[in-house]
Amino acid sequence: MSVPNKNKIINDPLHGFLTIPTGLIYDLIQHPYFQRLRRIRQLGMSEWVYPGATHTRFHHALGAMNLMLMAMDTLRKKGIEISDEEYQATAIAILLHDIGHGPYSHTLEHTLIQEVQHEEISINIMNKLNKEFNGEMDLAIKIFQDKYVVKPFLSQLISGQLDMDRLDYLLRDSFYTGVSEGIVGGERIINMLNVSDGNLVVEEKGIYSVEKFLVARRLMYWQVYLHKTVIAADALLISILNRARELAHVGHSLGSYHPLLHFLLNDISRENFDDEALQLFLALDDIDIMSSVKLWQFHEDKILSTLSQSLINRNLPKVLISKEPMSETNIEDAVYLTIEKLKITENDARRYFIKYGLLENHAYKSEGGGIRIMNKHGQVYDVAEISDNYNLAALKETVKKYYLIKWVK
Amino acid sequence: MSVPNKNKIINDPLHGFLTIPTGLIYDLIQHPYFQRLRRIRQLGMSEWVYPGATHTRFHHALGAMNLMLMAMDTLRKKGIEISDEEYQATAIAILLHDIGHGPYSHTLEHTLIQEVQHEEISINIMNKLNKEFNGEMDLAIKIFQDKYVVKPFLSQLISGQLDMDRLDYLLRDSFYTGVSEGIVGGERIINMLNVSDGNLVVEEKGIYSVEKFLVARRLMYWQVYLHKTVIAADALLISILNRARELAHVGHSLGSYHPLLHFLLNDISRENFDDEALQLFLALDDIDIMSSVKLWQFHEDKILSTLSQSLINRNLPKVLISKEPMSETNIEDAVYLTIEKLKITENDARRYFIKYGLLENHAYKSEGGGIRIMNKHGQVYDVAEISDNYNLAALKETVKKYYLIKWVK
Amino acid sequence: MSVPNKNKIINDPLHGFLTIPTGLIYDLIQHPYFQRLRRIRQLGMSEWVYPGATHTRFHHALGAMNLMLMAMDTLRKKGIEISDEEYQATAIAILLHDIGHGPYSHTLEHTLIQEVQHEEISINIMNKLNKEFNGEMDLAIKIFQDKYVVKPFLSQLISGQLDMDRLDYLLRDSFYTGVSEGIVGGERIINMLNVSDGNLVVEEKGIYSVEKFLVARRLMYWQVYLHKTVIAADALLISILNRARELAHVGHSLGSYHPLLHFLLNDISRENFDDEALQLFLALDDIDIMSSVKLWQFHEDKILSTLSQSLINRNLPKVLISKEPMSETNIEDAVYLTIEKLKITENDARRYFIKYGLLENHAYKSEGGGIRIMNKHGQVYDVAEISDNYNLAALKETVKKYYLIKWVK
Amino acid sequence: MSVPNKNKIINDPLHGFLTIPTGLIYDLIQHPYFQRLRRIRQLGMSEWVYPGATHTRFHHALGAMNLMLMAMDTLRKKGIEISDEEYQATAIAILLHDIGHGPYSHTLEHTLIQEVQHEEISINIMNKLNKEFNGEMDLAIKIFQDKYVVKPFLSQLISGQLDMDRLDYLLRDSFYTGVSEGIVGGERIINMLNVSDGNLVVEEKGIYSVEKFLVARRLMYWQVYLHKTVIAADALLISILNRARELAHVGHSLGSYHPLLHFLLNDISRENFDDEALQLFLALDDIDIMSSVKLWQFHEDKILSTLSQSLINRNLPKVLISKEPMSETNIEDAVYLTIEKLKITENDARRYFIKYGLLENHAYKSEGGGIRIMNKHGQVYDVAEISDNYNLAALKETVKKYYLIKWVK
Repeated sequence: MSVPNKNKIINDPLHGFLTIPTGLIYDLIQHPYFQRLRRIRQLGMSEWVYPGATHTRFHHALGAMNLMLMAMDTLRKKGIEISDEEYQATAIAILLHDIGHGPYSHTLEHTLIQEVQHEEISINIMNKLNKEFNGEMDLAIKIFQDKYVVKPFLSQLISGQLDMDRLDYLLRDSFYTGVSEGIVGGERIINMLNVSDGNLVVEEKGIYSVEKFLVARRLMYWQVYLHKTVIAADALLISILNRARELAHVGHSLGSYHPLLHFLLNDISRENFDDEALQLFLALDDIDIMSSVKLWQFHEDKILSTLSQSLINRNLPKVLISKEPMSETNIEDAVYLTIEKLKITENDARRYFIKYGLLENHAYKSEGGGIRIMNKHGQVYDVAEISDNYNLAALKETVKKYYLIKWVK
Repeated sequence: MSVPNKNKIINDPLHGFLTIPTGLIYDLIQHPYFQRLRRIRQLGMSEWVYPGATHTRFHHALGAMNLMLMAMDTLRKKGIEISDEEYQATAIAILLHDIGHGPYSHTLEHTLIQEVQHEEISINIMNKLNKEFNGEMDLAIKIFQDKYVVKPFLSQLISGQLDMDRLDYLLRDSFYTGVSEGIVGGERIINMLNVSDGNLVVEEKGIYSVEKFLVARRLMYWQVYLHKTVIAADALLISILNRARELAHVGHSLGSYHPLLHFLLNDISRENFDDEALQLFLALDDIDIMSSVKLWQFHEDKILSTLSQSLINRNLPKVLISKEPMSETNIEDAVYLTIEKLKITENDARRYFIKYGLLENHAYKSEGGGIRIMNKHGQVYDVAEISDNYNLAALKETVKKYYLIKWVK
Repeated sequence: MSVPNKNKIINDPLHGFLTIPTGLIYDLIQHPYFQRLRRIRQLGMSEWVYPGATHTRFHHALGAMNLMLMAMDTLRKKGIEISDEEYQATAIAILLHDIGHGPYSHTLEHTLIQEVQHEEISINIMNKLNKEFNGEMDLAIKIFQDKYVVKPFLSQLISGQLDMDRLDYLLRDSFYTGVSEGIVGGERIINMLNVSDGNLVVEEKGIYSVEKFLVARRLMYWQVYLHKTVIAADALLISILNRARELAHVGHSLGSYHPLLHFLLNDISRENFDDEALQLFLALDDIDIMSSVKLWQFHEDKILSTLSQSLINRNLPKVLISKEPMSETNIEDAVYLTIEKLKITENDARRYFIKYGLLENHAYKSEGGGIRIMNKHGQVYDVAEISDNYNLAALKETVKKYYLIKWVK
Repeated sequence: MSVPNKNKIINDPLHGFLTIPTGLIYDLIQHPYFQRLRRIRQLGMSEWVYPGATHTRFHHALGAMNLMLMAMDTLRKKGIEISDEEYQATAIAILLHDIGHGPYSHTLEHTLIQEVQHEEISINIMNKLNKEFNGEMDLAIKIFQDKYVVKPFLSQLISGQLDMDRLDYLLRDSFYTGVSEGIVGGERIINMLNVSDGNLVVEEKGIYSVEKFLVARRLMYWQVYLHKTVIAADALLISILNRARELAHVGHSLGSYHPLLHFLLNDISRENFDDEALQLFLALDDIDIMSSVKLWQFHEDKILSTLSQSLINRNLPKVLISKEPMSETNIEDAVYLTIEKLKITENDARRYFIKYGLLENHAYKSEGGGIRIMNKHGQVYDVAEISDNYNLAALKETVKKYYLIKWVK
């Protein structure tokens, strides 16, 4: 291991102080690839609704690592063996779990790059870093990919129905938006973690905290992640990028930063996501998108400038939410009113302005590894089975809503 | 109205500052009947499990009044008319809603006095105060009794499925126990209140806060109000009082404070709960119970002293919780092991030591006035109907658990 | 060491969760001597002003131990050696640092027992417990008495200008009173602790947190500990006990709990504070005082009943605060007006009603071991010397105020 | 007044909910000039040290308005007359008090525009808005400029030693950085406000809160606003802009957004800050600066690219802080080591790399209107006079420190 730099602490209004446990981790945090996360907002367009939600993936990654250290410390105190090497590797794996996120994360995930998921890009970047650090991250990558079969609980702490990533983002997003519905007893849940047969379990007395966690996650989806104004802003940004891409393809000048232009001019898929593309991807962040949108407010293309001005000045389109799919009539009305009001073609109205679709909220999935509860006799059950209430069964159902983005009231 | 004393503020770690809106309210707070609530804990025996839960009914009553003032201010801003007289009366009604609580409130509600509910006693005391204050509380009493038919929403704010009493106690009990599961968005809920057809409603966009409120209440029942160690301590205190009463009836000296002795020596029911009894009742608080229990640690009656020592030194009996009713065998085993261990008669074991029964947790009742949600077209629905999820339907179900208090492991 | 019981956690709204590190500590917490602290309020009469301040010495002791564990964990991470035995002993020493407090702690410290400080009683009780636990507490007692010369920093963490006791009580009293002036960055201060030459030091970058701590302490003195209404309530309670003692000495019946009567009937000083007295002392708590005061409301002695009713119904005397000593005239006026109003003798007025004196607030003492700051070159200075501001020098000055308790406005 | 839109609420994790009192204020918030503040960070470069400090001037402006509404509500309850028109005007004045801030606010205040203070620009923009709103802001502008002689306290609430701006930013910066030293009892201070002779005063019992406020402000200066790493990042950004300006003047292409180029190519002073300049200024925000710096990482000019890469990758220069002015030797050493390491000319080293100067922290100024304390007899004193302690006198002293930014250790 590298030389530790134990005194380094970073303030976090949420968890208090974030400590950096080893020198290697310190070096990774200092690396430009990780520093780049300072310029990617955790919640993308949500700040248009919740002005406090300007927090970054950088802070979330550090926070999730902090919870991970607490979780591993707790497990060690309960007699679960975690070697120093495993400890550091697991910390690195969660620290870098979001390193593959691009600008405006989820919003643009399939707009800038067509098929490649951010998890794949994360692995690419980890491999790149691993070379730079002479293989010191081998174990971290193995754990991140859930290939460390000796101790599956380490991977489960990174990605599962109740992992340190989710715990940090629920608490953090709740804190910064001011939506108290997302507050969960993070410390309590961590105190209740244990390991049975190599798998992560929660001790039975923690069952109410788990239920609270699932309900909180469900409420945060409706109130923040799928808030109707956030849906509108997301759709607007996607339309802007799609229009810009189209204009670029037919030879219009866009005046943007070179790395962004690369992704607008080329269709990047898994096949041609080569090292050059990755290098350019790593130069991108929220600033490049927003500075382009600011510029495009004055673009000669009327559609691009209209959309861009709407975003910058926060003249967001109206959104209709319904439990039933939108009727044909509803959609056609929206299209024609928009054509009339904005004086655009039907084709453009359908491509860039009127959007509709499905929102799904699935609070808890038990298939493929749900949340395991261990009773005091050491028996392990799925949480939805053992719970004394009818709520958790309900949380397994997917709730569906339908949205229609209209430009007129 | 009396002369206002507007500058008076009282610190509350939960709500910040509590203000006292009128002179009459100030005088009521200063009254010995209200000051007595300083000596009655809000959560009775819960402090045996949650050492921070030493907060009092005095503080809760002030806090609930504070939320009530906020709620009325919000409604006024929305154009709902509330006269100054109604404003003060509603504030008084909630301030005094718990004035009829005796020592260890719910724990001893049917032990000290057999049939009279604390709500009835509250009304008795309010009437007594009303005489003292020359009828200035007429309207307050009317609203408290839900007889103010012109504006039923005022009574609904005091007592209903979503009232200021519940809102304050959930937040306060959560704050002082440190159980974060009870935290709800109180300010948000209050901001979403409105009135339709004279009835209290919540605007539709507040629906998730209402759901959170109901889930939080349900979790607080399991984690705090019905916590198994609290059940044990409650049962122990009841046994102590029952034993003392029995000894008193056969002429034993108990050495307690006269007003407490009165309730131990006499069976007080609705018929003989006269003015003298009320006066003695108003002299009682938690201190009288606990000082007697301290004394009884050294009583010559072995059962009384054993039970009393157990409570004071926190040697609490074990409790078994199960989703199924306890089997005969289980109960009989507990009885015989206790007889053997404590060298007592079977009769005494059954009367004072072994207790079993049912715990019910009913998060939401829609019958007789549930929570009404108003959509933006002004239509009103019951919350369980309109909610887009399956949770609220589940919260209408009563969850049952069974307990058995044993003295041996 | 005893068998650990590592899973035991206690909720604390302030620090989150309190863990119990070893089996011996668990047994000490369960001991009736320690459980007794549940019945002694941390802030005595302050709840008459701050209704939330009902927290107990029990909770404070656990909280201070929790901070101590954090402090020792931090020091260990910085390479300071603390053996498991020292770790447990230091935790025990702080856990029991207040075990010698009697009912209403500071208020009655010199009223119930004349000359013996609570620290001496604490040591007596620790010795008693040590016998029961077969000498397992030897090292804890040594550290508590500052006799562990090998590692003086352990004792300094228990008692000094910046110890874990003060850190917990400032934070806790601030939390429960709702007086935000006392909030300090506890976690930050602990993170900055280090050891130089065996002595506790704070790293230089923590200097502002130390300054904040000293200012906060000073403000808490004026706003809470020396609040004028608290002064009045304290004086009232002392008068009540003094009057009761006097009546007892001349043969009046007081009807109180035997252990309390013992201390009223006898003058307990260092000489006759024998094992029997200690045993009786350990049976006393706040309940005994308050139940007696309740009883004495109806005592035939008019002075005792007047004083007692004043306390129970919170008719507290008026207090005058001034930067100058009270003038003779002021005092004489107060005496004569009280005589007239209450129809008592001059002697009684002076003995029980009119009180005056000096309040001192001394935020920081550097003599005999102040707060040591270590710069990055390892040099150590007193905080008042190195600070870049003039504030800390000012905090070394004792601020004096004078009070006069009057019964008339 | 415009039609009210009273139901509009905005979440604020700090104050709970922010309400918008009138329709005119709603329209101002929706205006592009105000929405622009969403893209200007409140604390500029501080996020390089405190990753949570990504909050914006938009949020601060709304928060300060919220405190202002609370303050005016409190004063009205105390009988101070504030008409509805004055109420709205004062709210507007504080809402727009920072509207004239440019990108990276204080950091670039004298770099982008040479002589014009942000307050002057604020007035320009308010006048522009006032035209658009047909003079509805006349009174607001009068109050902002402290020209409303009838009720000077309204202007004092906006700008003074204890105004709603300072109160919000201390609380907000503390909240988002996680530096607890800045927490003050905002609600308590507001509750203690009053008016005497037309001037804002604090009631005497609020004196400790005022002292806490002044100490907190002083500590926030050292720990956040003047944190040495923030000083370094600020200086780096200024050097980047200065170098870019110089290159622009000699004809280099910079590739930036047109409005920014305008300010780099022209020297904008009070004389030529015309309407066109103002319009361009209003198109600028943090994004334009940071997107340029990202671009300039690859600029052919080595100095510009070196500085830009340092900032983006957070390779910040070292900073030395001292109570004494830096010695010549110290400075010369820094210069020559930098020349050697970076291979640059002495002139460039002195211009862009080595910076030194003075930091001043002046917690309290009594000249020209300090904080007035009113005792219960209605007499008014300056806070530093009446305080019973030596601290406040100390806070009047300016504390000076000296810094030297070096590029080598």
